[in-house]
This record gives sequence, C-alpha cells and structure tokens, in this order.
Amino acid sequence: MAALTDPDLLFPSEARPLSLARDLYASVKDLPIVSPHGHTDPRWYALNEAFPDPAQLLVVPDHYIFRMLFSQGVRLEDLGVPTLDGSPVETDGRKIWRRFAEHYYLFRGTPTQLWFDHVLAHLFGIDEPLSANAADRHYDTIAALLQRDDYRPRALFERFNIEVIATTEGALDDLNWHKAIRNSGWQGRVVTAYRPDAVVDPDFEGFSANVDRLGDITGCDTGTWAGYLDAHRQRRALFKNFGATASDHGHPTAETGNLSDAAAQELFNRIRRGSDDERERRLFRAQMLTEMAKMSRDDGLILQIHPGSWRNHSPFVFQRFGRDKGFDIPTRTDYVTALKPLLDCVGLERDLTVILFTLDETSYARELAPLAGVYPALKIGPAWWFHDSPEGMRRFREMTTETAGFYNTVGFNDDTRAFPSIPARHDVARRVDCAFLARLVAEHRLREDEAHELAQELAYTLAKKAYRL
Amino acid sequence: MAALTDPDLLFPSEARPLSLARDLYASVKDLPIVSPHGHTDPRWYALNEAFPDPAQLLVVPDHYIFRMLFSQGVRLEDLGVPTLDGSPVETDGRKIWRRFAEHYYLFRGTPTQLWFDHVLAHLFGIDEPLSANAADRHYDTIAALLQRDDYRPRALFERFNIEVIATTEGALDDLNWHKAIRNSGWQGRVVTAYRPDAVVDPDFEGFSANVDRLGDITGCDTGTWAGYLDAHRQRRALFKNFGATASDHGHPTAETGNLSDAAAQELFNRIRRGSDDERERRLFRAQMLTEMAKMSRDDGLILQIHPGSWRNHSPFVFQRFGRDKGFDIPTRTDYVTALKPLLDCVGLERDLTVILFTLDETSYARELAPLAGVYPALKIGPAWWFHDSPEGMRRFREMTTETAGFYNTVGFNDDTRAFPSIPARHDVARRVDCAFLARLVAEHRLREDEAHELAQELAYTLAKKAYRL
Amino acid sequence: MAALTDPDLLFPSEARPLSLARDLYASVKDLPIVSPHGHTDPRWYALNEAFPDPAQLLVVPDHYIFRMLFSQGVRLEDLGVPTLDGSPVETDGRKIWRRFAEHYYLFRGTPTQLWFDHVLAHLFGIDEPLSANAADRHYDTIAALLQRDDYRPRALFERFNIEVIATTEGALDDLNWHKAIRNSGWQGRVVTAYRPDAVVDPDFEGFSANVDRLGDITGCDTGTWAGYLDAHRQRRALFKNFGATASDHGHPTAETGNLSDAAAQELFNRIRRGSDDERERRLFRAQMLTEMAKMSRDDGLILQIHPGSWRNHSPFVFQRFGRDKGFDIPTRTDYVTALKPLLDCVGLERDLTVILFTLDETSYARELAPLAGVYPALKIGPAWWFHDSPEGMRRFREMTTETAGFYNTVGFNDDTRAFPSIPARHDVARRVDCAFLARLVAEHRLREDEAHELAQELAYTLAKKAYRL
Repeated sequence: MAALTDPDLLFPSEARPLSLARDLYASVKDLPIVSPHGHTDPRWYALNEAFPDPAQLLVVPDHYIFRMLFSQGVRLEDLGVPTLDGSPVETDGRKIWRRFAEHYYLFRGTPTQLWFDHVLAHLFGIDEPLSANAADRHYDTIAALLQRDDYRPRALFERFNIEVIATTEGALDDLNWHKAIRNSGWQGRVVTAYRPDAVVDPDFEGFSANVDRLGDITGCDTGTWAGYLDAHRQRRALFKNFGATASDHGHPTAETGNLSDAAAQELFNRIRRGSDDERERRLFRAQMLTEMAKMSRDDGLILQIHPGSWRNHSPFVFQRFGRDKGFDIPTRTDYVTALKPLLDCVGLERDLTVILFTLDETSYARELAPLAGVYPALKIGPAWWFHDSPEGMRRFREMTTETAGFYNTVGFNDDTRAFPSIPARHDVARRVDCAFLARLVAEHRLREDEAHELAQELAYTLAKKAYRL
Repeated sequence: MAALTDPDLLFPSEARPLSLARDLYASVKDLPIVSPHGHTDPRWYALNEAFPDPAQLLVVPDHYIFRMLFSQGVRLEDLGVPTLDGSPVETDGRKIWRRFAEHYYLFRGTPTQLWFDHVLAHLFGIDEPLSANAADRHYDTIAALLQRDDYRPRALFERFNIEVIATTEGALDDLNWHKAIRNSGWQGRVVTAYRPDAVVDPDFEGFSANVDRLGDITGCDTGTWAGYLDAHRQRRALFKNFGATASDHGHPTAETGNLSDAAAQELFNRIRRGSDDERERRLFRAQMLTEMAKMSRDDGLILQIHPGSWRNHSPFVFQRFGRDKGFDIPTRTDYVTALKPLLDCVGLERDLTVILFTLDETSYARELAPLAGVYPALKIGPAWWFHDSPEGMRRFREMTTETAGFYNTVGFNDDTRAFPSIPARHDVARRVDCAFLARLVAEHRLREDEAHELAQELAYTLAKKAYRL
Repeated sequence: MAALTDPDLLFPSEARPLSLARDLYASVKDLPIVSPHGHTDPRWYALNEAFPDPAQLLVVPDHYIFRMLFSQGVRLEDLGVPTLDGSPVETDGRKIWRRFAEHYYLFRGTPTQLWFDHVLAHLFGIDEPLSANAADRHYDTIAALLQRDDYRPRALFERFNIEVIATTEGALDDLNWHKAIRNSGWQGRVVTAYRPDAVVDPDFEGFSANVDRLGDITGCDTGTWAGYLDAHRQRRALFKNFGATASDHGHPTAETGNLSDAAAQELFNRIRRGSDDERERRLFRAQMLTEMAKMSRDDGLILQIHPGSWRNHSPFVFQRFGRDKGFDIPTRTDYVTALKPLLDCVGLERDLTVILFTLDETSYARELAPLAGVYPALKIGPAWWFHDSPEGMRRFREMTTETAGFYNTVGFNDDTRAFPSIPARHDVARRVDCAFLARLVAEHRLREDEAHELAQELAYTLAKKAYRL
C-alpha cells in the first residue's frame, strides 16, 4: 500500500504549476525547521523521558481533535480530558484511541487529518488509514515505537531537523526546565518567550496576586507604576538570558493606549486597588501593549500581538475542564483604530518589530497589509490557528502579498502544543507557499529565479530574520 | 444544436480533477431530492392544477429575476408584479416574457442564468438560448407544455424525483392545503415548517392582533407569558402532525436572550401593552429564539436561524409592491456575541439541532465554523440566498470545511419559491460539491473513497439526518 | 533575452482556459483606453514639456512605491519625497533610482512590479529586470528617451491610444490648465471631474476660508444655505463646460443624510459658525452627498463615492510630508445603513448614476452587489486602490458578478497619478477580466459568444456608457 501522504500533496494538478511547485519544494523541503512561536513543553526536552501512550500523546492534549469530536456528541470525559475538580475521566489510552479512530472520518477535509496522516506515515511508518478497524493495530505500533530511545523528545527534535524552537512561558515562570536543558549539555536550541498576560490583564484569574508575586520574584515594588515596569524589564532580561527573542500577548482585542506617564501611573494605581470599571481594565491592557513596545525598542525583543479570541466561550466547559478546550472563538477584530496609539508612539521605529496576528481574515487585505506595508515597525504574522490550513494559508498569501509584499511577512509559526506534528505543519506550509509561488510563475507574475529565492525566504530565512534567531 | 447546459458544467477543466469530478457526480446525480427548507406553495400540490402561462410561472414571482431588471431601469409594473393597491400592471404574459427575454443578457455570470438555462433545457427541451429573437418561440413551447398533465405540479414533483419537500407556513396558518394533500391520497411527501415571525417579532405588521389570534386558534391565553408559550407549543405540535421537523426564524440579527422566567414574563407584558422601546422589542425577539430552542429540545424540531437581512430596504417599493421584492439587503452579522445567551442555555445539548445561516460570508471561517466545530447543538446551514451560487457555494466549502469539517454542515437547501428550478438548484449544488471534492482528491487532501462517501452525504444523507427527515 | 512581461501574463496555465483567454484578450487588447477616473496632472497635457528624470517621473511621486520602501526602513528623505517645511531631501535622481533598484525585490508578487515591468518593457524597451546591478543602465536608457519628443506627454497620450482621460480638480480650481489644453488646438480629450471635498468636509484644512472663497469666485452668498448650494451648481456647470461628466467624493465613510430643507439650512448655519460638534460635522458631510446626488439628478453628472480611507494615519508623516504619502489606511465600511437616506431620496431614479467604490472587500458580496443589483441609481465601481491588482480584481468579479451581474459594474478606472503606467494598468485589468471570462466559459457557465461581448463591455463600452463619455 502506498504512503498515506502523496508526494504531490497540495500541489496543483495541472502540468506546469505542478512541475514548478515540485522544483520549488525540492529546494526547501530539507531546510531545518525554525519554530519561533509555539507551545511545546520545555519539560520534555529537559527530562527527555519517553512519551506516554499514543492517546495521551496525540489525542488528549490536542484541542483541535477533541473539540471536533465534542461537536458531534462525544463527551470530553470519554476522551480523557481531565476535569478541574478531579472527577473521573477515561484513563485507558486504548479506549480513548478507539473512540478517536471511530470518529476519524469527521476530520475529512481538515488540516488535522493532513497533519495526523503525515505523523502516521512519516513518524510511525504506517500506511493504512486510521479507522475503527485499524485502531488497535495502529495503537500497538505507535505504543511500541514510543518506548524506543529514538522516539524520545531529544531524538525526535534532532530527527525533525529543528534548528531552534521557542516555547512560551508566563512572566512568573521560574524557567527551571530551560535551566535544566541548558545544564544538560544537550545541544538542541530551545528558547523561551515572554508571555505576561497573567500580570498585564486585570481580568486574568488571580491578577492582583500575580502582580504581587512579580514583585516578590524581582525584588521590585510592584505597588508602584515605576516598580511594576522595572519588574517587567527584569523578567524580560532574564527571559533573554534563556534565549528569548520575543514577547507574546494574547489580548482580547488589539487595542493600545498612549497615556502620559502621569495618567498611566494613576490608572495603574486604580487597577492595583482592584478597579471595577471594565473600561479602565481595558485601557490598562491597551496601555501595557504600548509599554511593552517601548521596552522592545530598548531591549530588542520582538513584540507579538495575538488578539481577537473570545476565550472560554462556554462557561460550563470552562468551569469543568478549564482553559484551552476548543471553546476559544474568533471575533471581528479592528487594527486601524486599535493600534493607532501604539503606532503614534513607536510605529516609525526602524529597529522595533511588532508582529500582528489575526483570527479575522477580513483584516488581511483591508488593514494588516496596508499597515505593515507602510509602518517600519510592523510585520504580519502567518495565518494563525483556525487559518493555519491549506485554504487559510492560501488566502493569507492572496490577500496580503499584493499590498505588503512577501518581505513584510515573517515565515511560518507552527504555534503548536503537538510536538509530533511539527514537521507535518511546516511541510504543509512549505507546500502551500510553493504552490502559491508556482501559480505566480505559471501566470508570469514572478520569474522562476525569484520564486526560488522566495521559497527559501518563506520556509526558513524570514523567520530567522524577523525573530532575530 | 447542443443542449444549453453542458455535461461538464462547473467542473474544473484540467484533466485529473475533471475526471474525478465526473466520477463523483455520476454517483450522486440521480439521488432523490431532499428539500428540507423552501417556499413552494402547498396549494400547488393540493389542487394539482396546471401552472399558468410561462411568465406567471417563471418571471413574475421570482425576485431574483425582476430585481435585476429593475436595477437596469425596467419598471416592476411592466413585469407584471402586482401592486398592493391594485393599480394596474402588465397582465399579458407574452409581453412580460418578451421584456424578460430582451434583458436576459443581464444575467450572464449569475446563477439565475444557470438555473434558467437548466429549466429550459431539461424541463422544456429547448436548446436555443433565450433572446429577444427566440422569445416568442420559447413562450409558445413552454405554454403548450404547461397545459399537459405531465407538467402539473404532482407530475413534476415525481419527475423531479423529490423524496420530500418542506414548505414554510406562518404560525397562524390553518394548514388546510397540507390537510388537502394528506386527504388526497397522493403519495408525494410534502411537509410544513413552523415560521412564527408574525407572532414573535413585535415589529411585524399586526403583531398584537396576530398574538390575539394565536390565542383564539389555540384556546390559550396569549395575554400571559405562560399561555403565549403554551400556544406556541400547541402550534408546534400541530405542525409536527403535518410533517414539520423544523422551525424557521428570520430575525434581523442573530441576537438571543437568556432571561429569567420572571424577567421574560415582565418583558412580555410590556411588549403586549405595545412597547415603544426599540431595545425591548429587540430583546423580546432575542429571548424568543432561546424559548424556541428550549421547545426544540423538548419536541425535537430543528431550529433554523436565518438572520441578517434588512427587509424592504426601499420604503417606496414596500408601500407599492409589498414584501419580497428584491429589496432585502444583507447586513454585517455577528454570531459569537449574539448567540452566547442561547448557547449558555442549551448549546451543549446533544439532542438539539440549531442550524445557522448567514448572509455575511465573513462569518463562515471566523465565527460559524469555530462555533459549529465545538458546540454539539450547532450546525452550519448551506450557502444561502445571494450566496447560493457556484462561487458562493465554493467559498462556503473553502471557508467552513477546515474548521467545522463536512459533518457539521447539513447538505443543501434550495430555499426557493421557484418550483421548476428545484432540480437545477440541486444539480448546481451537487456539481459544485463534487468539483470541490475532486480538487481535494487531486491535491491529495482526501482519498477517492472518502470523496465518494462525502459526495453521497453532501447530496443526500446529511440533509436527511440533520433535518430528521 | 525575452521581454520582461510574458504574452500570457495572468492567464490560466491549463490548456482550455488559456486558449480561451488568449482569444478574448486578442479581441480587446488594442481597444482605446477610456480612463474615466484618475489623477494625472492636466498641466502635463497643457504644457507638453519633457518629463524630468526617471526618478522624478517614476519613483518620487508614486506612493505605492515609496510606502513599501519606507515599510522596510528606507527614509522618505532619501527617496526625494519633499518635506513641507522645505528641509532638504535627496535631489539626485540617479541616487534615488539606485535606492529604489536595490529594494526592487520587495515588490515581488505586487501589482507595482507588474506595472513597472510593463513600463520598462513596453515603454522603454528594456528586457533586463531592474536590480542594483542594472540600475544605472536602465536610468541612462530612460533618461535619454525622456528627452525625445515622442516621449512628451501628448505623444505618450496618443501612443497609449487614450480616447479620453479624466483628471480631478477641486471645487476652487481655476481649471486654467484645462483651458490651456482646449486653447492649444491639440485634439487629445482631457476632461475634468468635480471634487468638492475641501468645501464640503468641515474637517478639511481651511474649510471655512474655502467656502468663503467659493462665494468669491461664484458671486454666490455662501453664507446662506441656498447661496452655498447655488455656488456648487455654478461650479458644476463650469466643470461640465470643461468636459466633466462626474463628481468625486472622498468621504471617510459612506454616510448620507436626508434632512428637510429647514434642518439642512440650520445645520449649515451651525457649521459655518464653526461647529465643534463632531456629530454635526459628520452629518453635514452626509447631507452633502445627498445634495450632490440631487444636483446630479438635475445636471447629469455621475456621482462617485470613494469612502473608507483613514487619511494620514501617521501624524508625524503628515506633518513632515503632507497628504498622500502612503499612510491612508482602509477601514471597515458600511453601505446598507449609510446610504439609506440618499437612496430613500433618489435611489429609484432611472437617470441618476451613483458609482460606489470600496476599500472593504467584505462589502462586495454582502452589500454592494445586492444594492446595485436592485437600485436603478446604483452601480459598483471597479476594484480600487489596494485592490486594483490581479487577486483583487479577480475577487471583485467573483464576489460581485453572481448578484449584480456584469452590467451593474462600470469597467475599469486606473485612478492613477502615474501617467506612464496607464497602459500597464488597463492591460492588467483586461487580462484579469479575460481570464475570469475564460474560466466561466471553461466551466460552461457562459457561452463563448457571450464572453466575447462581455470582454468588449468590460474593457471599453461599460466605462463609456456609465460615465457618459
């Protein structure tokens, strides 16, 4: 039986663009992976323990997978998703795997199936599609392989040809896993990124205690505005010591502020006293994006803005299972008005890089490309989350390139918790970009030599340059 | 001369996807038509009278047609569209037909031309394009056929291979035509659907009298909140007796409410006294969607939400010609915020089905697919109204599939008043879906056996399952 | 070496659509250019002087070009963009040209590269791509050609086969260059268009003085509402004398008003006294669109509405360099609500033409096509500004045609200041439209004879008809 994934996956089927796409892809498919934004667990690389059973590795932690099954009536408990109160859920990996396999047809036409088939074929050497019938055989195959040393995290990291990967840690994280990686002598390059939402967003659970703790661990007086900012500076410096080249901000909107120092200080005081005013809490988040941009201007960290997700849309699911359970829903997102205060402040800076992401594709051509196509500080992040898919990535190129060009974009982010899927995700992105370039060449909108240069840039170089990696 | 419609209509012209699309289409083109949502007149099936002249059948009632002619300066009176005050309009079918034929070029590139050509070719055996020159010949051909018994409504129903068709009746409708169909002994399956806008929307013409009448015909006291809800329950039960499996709600927005019983009762009382407060009337409509969802949970009717049309945008045309005259204009529509109250209440129910439609394509990838891709109660309705077209249906698949999959969609709705066009509309939908599947196969994103299964689901099975038909 | 631009530029690469597209294009490529909306300088045609050096002609005035370079860190001063305060900028054309050439790779995949390559190949006979290496050679070639008589404005106008071109002048312009063209005896048809933003928008710099001056030059009392309207009527009549067939309105939004005469008069009085109320100033702009539409009904000028650009988004750049420096950013734009007052007033007029443009592509299928597909007074302008590009024009056709047809669109506008690029821009538009038509034919959605008729309409006839040229 042939491999699950065809060598021509995602390529146009007509003759000319197909051969062009193949040529372009051949020149980039073996480039190292640069993964400047993601959510893998640094503990894996630190401890280098064998991964647990197939279900715990591939199903239970993947909200792309269990949200789809949940939408079709499968209970999260039956998929092993842990409850916050510890009430029992399925723990038998084989049973979870079978339930997943029975419903695998739901993923037809989705990137989850592309990625998953790629992992089965290329990582586990499986060439029979997953189905109820094949479930047990595949489970056994994978479970056996996961016990082998060459399937441990560091071996996979090397096999995946990862040149550098970024994880994401909260501002209060002790970075101990990163210390352990460094002290282990292993040469794999794993860097952190600074994600301060918990000490920047007054609506975050435990915000006030978090800011107190930020004071404790930095020795700064986070009861004052100046001390609070200093504490951020200290943490950023520490994160930089552990390789961070970027910060990351998951605000509900892209709103930014441009308050005077006095006004910002007064706002901070009200927030620290526990403001009940939604408008003030919003303004504080907004002002903090600009403060972070100013710090980025000084310390060189890239600023990533990931706005527009309504987190935990179902209160029932949030209370029972917690965050990141597939109930984060995109919302209409404005950038032109929202970013103006930040841009008025630092938008013309040549040495600052602010990377904008969106879950609202209508902003690609209307807002993000025109903004990034003129402000020196702005770049457009790749198609993100729900749009990190063949059609989504194609729309991204079609709607950003003509106004912003390729060089105001920053290559690909896999943005994933699902470590085994990283090569699949980069492979899909490289294929979609090569197919797009091939179409431009086939329509004589680009020369072949330009397309070859661009294929390299999109697959590898732009990410390194934009993220200073 | 060849047929007006080519066997390869809508198929990609390159070799591989074309042969794939042909294979897929061959396997579904003769499947029975399941039409779970539409607006044909049950009187036709009840009386089984010959249709009137070609213009009265194909031009005068079709707002897709006369709005386009009106946009180019043709008066509605000259197309026979009746005035509300009875002032005279053209009644000569042949003259109306000629005017239409003279302007038929306006429909180039529109689905109206696809459907119309399909009807000419497949229903009336005509193979010369409609034009001023051919107008009279075609008129005569069609007029003669319409006199034949095998062109009467029931004969066409059977020839069209309709397995089941839903009509739509208001809450106050006596369902007498449905009774007559049932009593006639004819075996064609025609079911109703519950459309209570006139007794749910305080802005509907005659709302207060309508609610009084709802009380009269049910024997419930619609002066009280409890009685009003009971009256709905009774009517829903009656509609179910006449085959209804769904209700349908054409609200201006998707806004829903989640009031306490006491608050809902108080709101109802204010509305019944004739509230002048636009916010209250909006909230009442919103709350009623949630009430209907709760009733659906109990009685099993599918809830269809069709929001986002600004009805009767031109007051002059509304006053002179009434509703449904082509002046219903889509508006920007939010779902994520609007549906939250309903979803907090019943969104996790596994036995409830709420089908969401939209006229705002920006919501496909941003809101509808993520919502339907996680909430068990939600499904996405097909491309609707202005988007019920080749490009519109293609965009629907491209923007919903990767996040929601195929199985959170519900097949095709023809949603039409234009009975003769029903096979054409289903044919176009089947072709577009087969072409989409063929592209996925050609790009190796789907296996051929999966595509064949999906072609069946999209053309037939999903509609039956989702609508419980 | 082959020409920079391929004969098959922008055509689909598969066999059938490619040959169809070639046939269609062959039938329209030599049609005269009708340019009903643009911003070339009438002084060029009046004086017919040689153009200055290559950089001053092709780089310095083109905000598509310098905004992209600025976004990647090149200073506007180094590109010769003049400062408002006269502080020095680069004046050496060759140095500017070299900077541009070094960064030319930034335009890969953008329409700027398509247009620029077309100009190099077809106007200057260059077949080597622009690069740092080729910069000086190309500069010399172009500089030499620009000295020749057959590269002067009128000679190019004739070589470009321009049948008619519209420029745009403010309401206070003396139209002296147009007078000079008329008096010169030269036969080239250059018409003006009425652009009254400076005397209609209370937020425009110097609005009050502008309205005073409007009174002075017309002899009307612009201190009164009646006199102010009369002054517009006079200016419109004068502009018509210089060939104007259209007015043009660049409001921030599409908002319109429908005030009573008394209310409008009162509003005008408050505005003239210098209203501080943002709402009032907005309402005045809104009302003036309707007033202009009423005047258009009377005098036959086409009304063009170009809304949705946030002008001069960066205050620093605006203060240093002034308007039109690439910092005009599109915003979300509503039409359905905004236009209702105007449409209630004159939307059903058969002899009025209002052409709607947008920078918000989400309005194509959702709002503009449904509105233009029913209101006799409305037409949809072509893909505009950031969307005046192969992908942008393709999306325009895909999202407007099925609801509005082709005949509620108005052909192509080049909308440019960049005179040498006019043939390139029309050529790109013709190619994209032919490719779109070829796809419809290849998918059997249009007959070949229809496509040929439409190719003519889209390339030539519709613009003449819609703009009454």
